[in-house]
Amino acid sequence: MAAAGPEIERLIALLAKLPGLGPRSARRAALHLVKKREAVLHPLATALQEVGETVRVCSTCGNVDTADPCTVCVDARRDPSVIIVVEDVGDLWALERAEVMRARYHVLGGTISALDGYGPEDIGIAKLVQRASDPAVREVILAMNATVEGQTTAHYITERLEPLPVKVSRLASGVPIGGELDYLDEGTLAAALNQRRPFSD
Amino acid sequence: MAAAGPEIERLIALLAKLPGLGPRSARRAALHLVKKREAVLHPLATALQEVGETVRVCSTCGNVDTADPCTVCVDARRDPSVIIVVEDVGDLWALERAEVMRARYHVLGGTISALDGYGPEDIGIAKLVQRASDPAVREVILAMNATVEGQTTAHYITERLEPLPVKVSRLASGVPIGGELDYLDEGTLAAALNQRRPFSD
Repeated sequence: MAAAGPEIERLIALLAKLPGLGPRSARRAALHLVKKREAVLHPLATALQEVGETVRVCSTCGNVDTADPCTVCVDARRDPSVIIVVEDVGDLWALERAEVMRARYHVLGGTISALDGYGPEDIGIAKLVQRASDPAVREVILAMNATVEGQTTAHYITERLEPLPVKVSRLASGVPIGGELDYLDEGTLAAALNQRRPFSD
Repeated sequence: MAAAGPEIERLIALLAKLPGLGPRSARRAALHLVKKREAVLHPLATALQEVGETVRVCSTCGNVDTADPCTVCVDARRDPSVIIVVEDVGDLWALERAEVMRARYHVLGGTISALDGYGPEDIGIAKLVQRASDPAVREVILAMNATVEGQTTAHYITERLEPLPVKVSRLASGVPIGGELDYLDEGTLAAALNQRRPFSD
Protein backbone atom coordinates (compact mmCIF):
# COMPACT_ATOMS: atom_id res chain seq x y z
CA MET A 1 0.00 0.00 0.00
CA ALA A 2 1.53 3.32 -1.02
CA ALA A 3 1.04 5.99 1.63
CA ALA A 4 2.38 8.77 -0.57
CA GLY A 5 2.06 9.87 -4.17
CA PRO A 6 4.32 8.66 -7.01
CA GLU A 7 6.52 11.80 -6.89
CA ILE A 8 7.47 11.11 -3.26
CA GLU A 9 7.99 7.40 -3.92
CA ARG A 10 10.29 8.31 -6.79
CA LEU A 11 12.28 10.69 -4.56
CA ILE A 12 12.64 7.90 -1.98
CA ALA A 13 13.88 5.46 -4.65
CA LEU A 14 16.47 7.99 -5.83
CA LEU A 15 17.66 8.81 -2.31
CA ALA A 16 18.05 5.08 -1.62
CA LYS A 17 20.67 4.97 -4.39
CA LEU A 18 23.02 7.18 -2.37
CA PRO A 19 25.75 5.34 -0.50
CA GLY A 20 24.99 5.30 3.22
CA LEU A 21 21.22 5.42 2.73
CA GLY A 22 19.18 2.22 2.62
CA PRO A 23 15.49 2.01 1.69
CA ARG A 24 14.41 2.80 5.25
CA SER A 25 16.71 5.75 5.87
CA ALA A 26 15.89 7.08 2.39
CA ARG A 27 12.24 7.17 3.48
CA ARG A 28 13.23 9.02 6.64
CA ALA A 29 15.35 11.46 4.63
CA ALA A 30 12.49 12.06 2.17
CA LEU A 31 10.13 12.77 5.04
CA HIS A 32 12.64 15.20 6.53
CA LEU A 33 12.88 16.92 3.14
CA VAL A 34 9.15 17.32 2.63
CA LYS A 35 8.74 18.57 6.18
CA LYS A 36 11.55 21.13 5.91
CA ARG A 37 10.78 22.36 2.46
CA GLU A 38 12.11 25.89 2.84
CA ALA A 39 15.14 25.06 5.00
CA VAL A 40 16.40 21.88 3.35
CA LEU A 41 14.51 20.68 0.25
CA HIS A 42 14.65 23.84 -1.85
CA PRO A 43 18.32 24.64 -1.08
CA LEU A 44 19.28 21.02 -1.79
CA ALA A 45 17.42 21.01 -5.11
CA THR A 46 19.18 24.24 -6.09
CA ALA A 47 22.60 23.00 -4.96
CA LEU A 48 22.20 19.76 -6.93
CA GLN A 49 21.21 21.65 -10.04
CA GLU A 50 24.16 24.02 -9.69
CA VAL A 51 26.65 21.23 -9.12
CA GLY A 52 25.10 19.22 -11.96
CA GLU A 53 25.62 22.13 -14.33
CA THR A 54 29.09 23.17 -13.21
CA VAL A 55 30.97 20.08 -12.10
CA ARG A 56 33.75 18.71 -14.29
CA VAL A 57 36.77 16.43 -14.10
CA CYS A 58 40.09 18.27 -13.83
CA SER A 59 42.01 17.62 -17.06
CA THR A 60 45.30 17.79 -15.14
CA CYS A 61 44.82 15.64 -12.06
CA GLY A 62 41.43 13.94 -12.39
CA ASN A 63 39.85 15.62 -9.33
CA VAL A 64 36.18 16.56 -9.67
CA ASP A 65 35.46 20.21 -9.16
CA THR A 66 33.46 23.08 -10.62
CA ALA A 67 36.60 24.49 -12.25
CA ASP A 68 39.14 23.00 -14.68
CA PRO A 69 42.00 23.03 -13.72
CA CYS A 70 40.64 22.29 -10.26
CA THR A 71 40.97 24.23 -7.00
CA VAL A 72 43.87 22.02 -5.95
CA CYS A 73 45.81 22.32 -9.22
CA VAL A 74 45.58 26.14 -9.36
CA ASP A 75 46.41 26.63 -5.66
CA ALA A 76 49.72 28.52 -5.82
CA ARG A 77 50.48 27.79 -2.16
CA ARG A 78 50.90 24.09 -2.90
CA ASP A 79 54.27 22.45 -3.42
CA PRO A 80 54.51 21.68 -7.17
CA SER A 81 57.38 19.23 -6.58
CA VAL A 82 55.21 16.54 -4.95
CA ILE A 83 52.48 14.49 -6.64
CA ILE A 84 50.34 12.23 -4.48
CA VAL A 85 48.82 9.39 -6.55
CA VAL A 86 45.42 8.13 -5.38
CA GLU A 87 42.95 5.59 -6.73
CA ASP A 88 39.87 7.71 -6.41
CA VAL A 89 38.63 11.26 -5.85
CA GLY A 90 37.32 10.19 -2.43
CA ASP A 91 40.88 9.33 -1.42
CA LEU A 92 42.04 12.79 -2.48
CA TRP A 93 39.33 14.37 -0.32
CA ALA A 94 40.25 12.09 2.59
CA LEU A 95 43.92 13.10 2.43
CA GLU A 96 42.95 16.77 2.20
CA ARG A 97 40.87 16.36 5.35
CA ALA A 98 44.01 15.12 7.12
CA GLU A 99 45.50 18.59 6.38
CA VAL A 100 49.05 17.29 6.49
CA MET A 101 50.54 18.07 3.09
CA ARG A 102 50.02 20.86 0.56
CA ALA A 103 50.87 18.89 -2.55
CA ARG A 104 49.38 18.20 -5.98
CA TYR A 105 47.47 15.01 -6.77
CA HIS A 106 46.97 12.50 -9.52
CA VAL A 107 43.68 10.57 -9.49
CA LEU A 108 43.94 7.24 -11.31
CA GLY A 109 40.22 6.54 -11.26
CA GLY A 110 40.78 2.85 -10.54
CA THR A 111 43.43 0.18 -10.18
CA ILE A 112 45.04 -2.38 -12.41
CA SER A 113 42.84 -5.43 -11.99
CA ALA A 114 43.22 -8.62 -13.99
CA LEU A 115 39.85 -9.78 -12.64
CA ASP A 116 37.96 -6.74 -13.93
CA GLY A 117 40.09 -6.53 -17.07
CA TYR A 118 41.58 -3.12 -16.20
CA GLY A 119 45.06 -2.60 -17.59
CA PRO A 120 47.55 0.27 -17.08
CA GLU A 121 46.15 2.11 -20.12
CA ASP A 122 42.67 2.21 -18.54
CA ILE A 123 43.76 4.21 -15.51
CA GLY A 124 45.87 6.83 -17.26
CA ILE A 125 49.28 5.83 -15.97
CA ALA A 126 50.91 7.23 -19.13
CA LYS A 127 49.64 10.64 -18.12
CA LEU A 128 51.09 10.29 -14.64
CA VAL A 129 54.47 9.36 -16.14
CA GLN A 130 54.21 12.43 -18.35
CA ARG A 131 53.45 14.70 -15.37
CA ALA A 132 56.24 13.11 -13.33
CA SER A 133 58.68 13.85 -16.19
CA ASP A 134 58.35 17.58 -15.50
CA PRO A 135 61.71 18.65 -13.97
CA ALA A 136 59.80 20.53 -11.24
CA VAL A 137 58.50 17.22 -9.83
CA ARG A 138 60.87 15.66 -7.30
CA GLU A 139 58.69 13.13 -5.45
CA VAL A 140 55.75 10.88 -6.28
CA ILE A 141 53.90 9.51 -3.24
CA LEU A 142 51.87 6.37 -3.97
CA ALA A 143 48.77 6.55 -1.77
CA MET A 144 46.86 3.54 -3.04
CA ASN A 145 44.61 1.47 -0.82
CA ALA A 146 46.37 -1.32 1.10
CA THR A 147 44.58 -3.94 -1.03
CA VAL A 148 45.98 -6.43 -3.52
CA GLU A 149 44.82 -4.31 -6.47
CA GLY A 150 46.11 -1.11 -4.91
CA GLN A 151 49.53 -2.55 -4.19
CA THR A 152 49.77 -4.24 -7.62
CA THR A 153 49.09 -0.86 -9.18
CA ALA A 154 51.68 0.78 -6.91
CA HIS A 155 54.32 -1.75 -7.95
CA TYR A 156 53.54 -1.25 -11.61
CA ILE A 157 53.77 2.55 -11.28
CA THR A 158 57.09 2.24 -9.46
CA GLU A 159 58.50 0.30 -12.41
CA ARG A 160 57.20 2.84 -14.89
CA LEU A 161 58.73 5.73 -12.91
CA GLU A 162 62.06 3.94 -12.46
CA PRO A 163 63.79 5.70 -15.41
CA LEU A 164 62.80 9.15 -14.14
CA PRO A 165 64.90 11.14 -11.62
CA VAL A 166 61.99 11.28 -9.10
CA LYS A 167 61.84 9.80 -5.62
CA VAL A 168 58.96 7.31 -5.35
CA SER A 169 57.56 6.74 -1.86
CA ARG A 170 54.45 5.14 -0.41
CA LEU A 171 52.26 5.48 2.67
CA ALA A 172 53.45 3.86 5.89
CA SER A 173 51.71 0.66 7.00
CA GLY A 174 51.05 -0.04 10.67
CA VAL A 175 48.71 0.28 13.59
CA PRO A 176 46.04 2.94 12.92
CA ILE A 177 45.91 5.75 15.49
CA GLY A 178 43.51 4.68 18.23
CA GLY A 179 43.75 1.07 17.08
CA GLU A 180 43.80 -1.79 19.56
CA LEU A 181 46.24 -4.57 18.79
CA ASP A 182 43.77 -7.22 19.86
CA TYR A 183 41.40 -6.19 17.06
CA LEU A 184 43.98 -5.90 14.27
CA ASP A 185 44.67 -8.54 11.65
CA GLU A 186 47.97 -10.41 11.49
CA GLY A 187 49.06 -8.63 8.30
CA THR A 188 48.83 -5.21 9.92
CA LEU A 189 50.61 -6.40 13.07
CA ALA A 190 53.38 -7.99 10.99
CA ALA A 191 53.84 -4.76 9.01
CA ALA A 192 53.86 -2.69 12.19
CA LEU A 193 56.54 -4.94 13.73
CA ASN A 194 58.69 -5.19 10.59
CA GLN A 195 58.54 -1.46 9.97
CA ARG A 196 59.11 -0.48 13.62
CA ARG A 197 60.83 2.88 14.22
CA PRO A 198 63.14 4.26 16.92
CA PHE A 199 61.01 5.40 19.87
CA SER A 200 62.48 8.91 19.80
CA ASP A 201 61.03 9.62 16.31
CA MET B 1 42.16 22.85 2.78
CA ALA B 2 39.18 22.60 0.47
CA ALA B 3 39.64 19.97 -2.21
CA ALA B 4 36.52 21.00 -4.09
CA GLY B 5 34.83 24.24 -5.09
CA PRO B 6 32.27 26.08 -2.95
CA GLU B 7 29.29 24.62 -4.86
CA ILE B 8 30.32 21.08 -3.96
CA GLU B 9 31.11 22.02 -0.35
CA ARG B 10 27.65 23.57 -0.11
CA LEU B 11 26.02 20.40 -1.48
CA ILE B 12 27.93 18.36 1.11
CA ALA B 13 26.77 20.65 3.94
CA LEU B 14 23.14 20.30 2.78
CA LEU B 15 23.34 16.52 2.43
CA ALA B 16 24.80 16.31 5.95
CA LYS B 17 21.54 17.81 7.26
CA LEU B 18 19.61 14.70 6.18
CA PRO B 19 18.90 12.20 8.95
CA GLY B 20 21.13 9.15 8.55
CA LEU B 21 23.94 11.05 6.84
CA GLY B 22 26.82 12.45 8.86
CA PRO B 23 29.52 14.79 7.52
CA ARG B 24 31.60 11.89 6.23
CA SER B 25 28.81 9.96 4.54
CA ALA B 26 27.48 13.23 3.09
CA ARG B 27 30.87 13.68 1.42
CA ARG B 28 30.69 10.15 0.06
CA ALA B 29 27.13 10.74 -1.19
CA ALA B 30 28.17 14.02 -2.87
CA LEU B 31 31.04 12.26 -4.60
CA HIS B 32 28.65 9.54 -5.78
CA LEU B 33 26.33 12.24 -7.12
CA VAL B 34 28.99 14.13 -9.06
CA LYS B 35 30.35 10.90 -10.48
CA LYS B 36 26.94 9.64 -11.61
CA ARG B 37 25.58 12.86 -12.94
CA GLU B 38 23.26 11.45 -15.57
CA ALA B 39 22.06 8.42 -13.62
CA VAL B 40 21.60 9.91 -10.15
CA LEU B 41 22.28 13.63 -9.75
CA HIS B 42 20.02 15.01 -12.47
CA PRO B 43 17.04 12.72 -11.67
CA LEU B 44 17.40 13.55 -7.95
CA ALA B 45 17.51 17.29 -8.64
CA THR B 46 14.38 16.98 -10.79
CA ALA B 47 12.56 14.80 -8.25
CA LEU B 48 13.34 17.23 -5.42
CA GLN B 49 12.07 20.14 -7.44
CA GLU B 50 8.87 18.28 -8.37
CA VAL B 51 8.20 17.22 -4.79
CA GLY B 52 9.05 20.72 -3.54
CA GLU B 53 6.44 22.19 -5.87
CA THR B 54 3.69 19.64 -5.38
CA VAL B 55 3.86 18.35 -1.81
CA ARG B 56 1.18 19.43 0.65
CA VAL B 57 -0.29 18.43 4.01
CA CYS B 58 -3.61 16.57 3.74
CA SER B 59 -6.29 18.79 5.25
CA THR B 60 -8.21 15.73 6.43
CA CYS B 61 -5.63 13.48 8.08
CA GLY B 62 -2.36 15.42 8.19
CA ASN B 63 -0.43 13.02 5.89
CA VAL B 64 2.03 14.64 3.49
CA ASP B 65 1.39 13.90 -0.14
CA THR B 66 1.25 15.54 -3.52
CA ALA B 67 -2.55 15.55 -3.43
CA ASP B 68 -5.07 16.96 -0.91
CA PRO B 69 -7.02 14.96 0.25
CA CYS B 70 -4.12 12.48 0.23
CA THR B 71 -3.79 9.10 -1.51
CA VAL B 72 -4.81 7.33 1.72
CA CYS B 73 -7.91 9.47 2.37
CA VAL B 74 -9.29 9.09 -1.17
CA ASP B 75 -8.59 5.34 -1.37
CA ALA B 76 -12.10 3.86 -1.67
CA ARG B 77 -10.85 0.36 -0.80
CA ARG B 78 -10.04 1.46 2.74
CA ASP B 79 -12.33 0.81 5.66
CA PRO B 80 -13.84 4.21 6.59
CA SER B 81 -14.93 2.92 10.01
CA VAL B 82 -11.41 2.74 11.47
CA ILE B 83 -9.09 5.70 12.23
CA ILE B 84 -5.52 4.95 13.27
CA VAL B 85 -4.06 7.86 15.26
CA VAL B 86 -0.28 8.38 14.91
CA GLU B 87 2.15 10.98 16.20
CA ASP B 88 3.94 11.60 12.96
CA VAL B 89 3.77 11.04 9.19
CA GLY B 90 6.74 8.66 9.51
CA ASP B 91 4.61 6.44 11.77
CA LEU B 92 1.84 6.38 9.15
CA TRP B 93 4.34 5.29 6.50
CA ALA B 94 5.75 2.64 8.86
CA LEU B 95 2.29 1.16 9.52
CA GLU B 96 1.52 1.18 5.81
CA ARG B 97 4.73 -0.76 5.18
CA ALA B 98 3.44 -3.43 7.58
CA GLU B 99 0.52 -3.90 5.12
CA VAL B 100 -1.79 -5.22 7.79
CA MET B 101 -4.77 -2.88 7.83
CA ARG B 102 -6.53 -0.84 5.18
CA ALA B 103 -7.78 1.95 7.40
CA ARG B 104 -7.78 5.75 7.51
CA TYR B 105 -5.29 7.73 9.60
CA HIS B 106 -5.07 10.81 11.75
CA VAL B 107 -1.62 12.41 12.10
CA LEU B 108 -1.29 14.46 15.27
CA GLY B 109 2.04 15.99 14.31
CA GLY B 110 3.35 15.71 17.88
CA THR B 111 2.44 14.75 21.40
CA ILE B 112 1.20 16.50 24.49
CA SER B 113 4.39 17.49 26.29
CA ALA B 114 4.51 19.63 29.40
CA LEU B 115 8.26 19.93 28.95
CA ASP B 116 8.03 21.38 25.45
CA GLY B 117 4.86 23.32 26.27
CA TYR B 118 2.67 21.41 23.81
CA GLY B 119 -0.97 21.18 24.87
CA PRO B 120 -3.91 19.29 23.32
CA GLU B 121 -4.82 22.31 21.18
CA ASP B 122 -1.37 22.28 19.52
CA ILE B 123 -1.74 18.79 18.07
CA GLY B 124 -5.24 19.11 16.63
CA ILE B 125 -7.06 16.73 18.97
CA ALA B 126 -10.29 18.71 18.50
CA LYS B 127 -10.18 17.79 14.83
CA LEU B 128 -9.73 14.12 15.67
CA VAL B 129 -12.75 14.26 18.00
CA GLN B 130 -14.74 15.87 15.20
CA ARG B 131 -13.70 13.14 12.72
CA ALA B 132 -14.49 10.42 15.26
CA SER B 133 -17.98 11.91 15.74
CA ASP B 134 -18.89 10.82 12.21
CA PRO B 135 -21.39 7.93 12.62
CA ALA B 136 -19.40 5.94 10.03
CA VAL B 137 -16.44 5.71 12.42
CA ARG B 138 -16.64 2.73 14.75
CA GLU B 139 -13.07 2.34 16.04
CA VAL B 140 -10.14 4.62 16.85
CA ILE B 141 -6.80 2.83 17.21
CA LEU B 142 -4.22 4.78 19.21
CA ALA B 143 -0.82 4.01 17.65
CA MET B 144 1.36 6.41 19.59
CA ASN B 145 4.98 5.64 20.42
CA ALA B 146 5.49 3.65 23.63
CA THR B 147 7.06 6.69 25.30
CA VAL B 148 5.85 8.76 28.25
CA GLU B 149 4.67 11.56 25.93
CA GLY B 150 3.03 9.13 23.52
CA GLN B 151 1.15 7.33 26.27
CA THR B 152 0.15 10.59 28.01
CA THR B 153 -1.32 11.75 24.72
CA ALA B 154 -3.11 8.39 24.26
CA HIS B 155 -4.67 8.68 27.73
CA TYR B 156 -5.82 12.22 27.05
CA ILE B 157 -7.37 11.23 23.70
CA THR B 158 -9.15 8.28 25.35
CA GLU B 159 -10.80 10.68 27.80
CA ARG B 160 -11.85 13.04 25.03
CA LEU B 161 -13.38 10.20 22.99
CA GLU B 162 -15.17 8.73 26.04
CA PRO B 163 -18.56 10.41 25.28
CA LEU B 164 -18.58 9.11 21.69
CA PRO B 165 -19.97 5.69 20.70
CA VAL B 166 -16.60 4.57 19.28
CA LYS B 167 -14.38 1.74 20.42
CA VAL B 168 -10.93 3.04 21.43
CA SER B 169 -8.05 0.55 21.24
CA ARG B 170 -4.28 0.72 21.31
CA LEU B 171 -1.31 -1.23 19.97
CA ALA B 172 -0.23 -4.36 21.87
CA SER B 173 2.94 -4.12 23.97
CA GLY B 174 5.35 -7.03 24.21
CA VAL B 175 8.39 -8.78 22.81
CA PRO B 176 9.19 -7.52 19.29
CA ILE B 177 9.30 -10.26 16.60
CA GLY B 178 12.85 -11.58 16.47
CA GLY B 179 13.61 -10.00 19.85
CA GLU B 180 15.81 -11.80 22.35
CA LEU B 181 14.63 -11.63 25.95
CA ASP B 182 18.17 -11.15 27.24
CA TYR B 183 18.41 -7.84 25.36
CA LEU B 184 14.99 -6.45 26.29
CA ASP B 185 14.36 -3.91 29.04
CA GLU B 186 12.40 -4.81 32.17
CA GLY B 187 9.40 -2.67 31.15
CA THR B 188 8.91 -4.62 27.92
CA LEU B 189 9.33 -7.96 29.67
CA ALA B 190 6.83 -6.96 32.38
CA ALA B 191 4.31 -5.88 29.73
CA ALA B 192 4.84 -9.11 27.78
CA LEU B 193 4.26 -11.19 30.91
CA ASN B 194 1.27 -9.22 32.17
CA GLN B 195 -0.40 -9.23 28.77
CA ARG B 196 0.34 -12.88 28.01
CA ARG B 197 -2.12 -14.70 25.75
CA PRO B 198 -3.33 -18.30 25.41
CA PHE B 199 -0.79 -20.27 23.39
CA SER B 200 -3.41 -21.42 20.86
CA ASP B 201 -4.08 -17.83 19.69
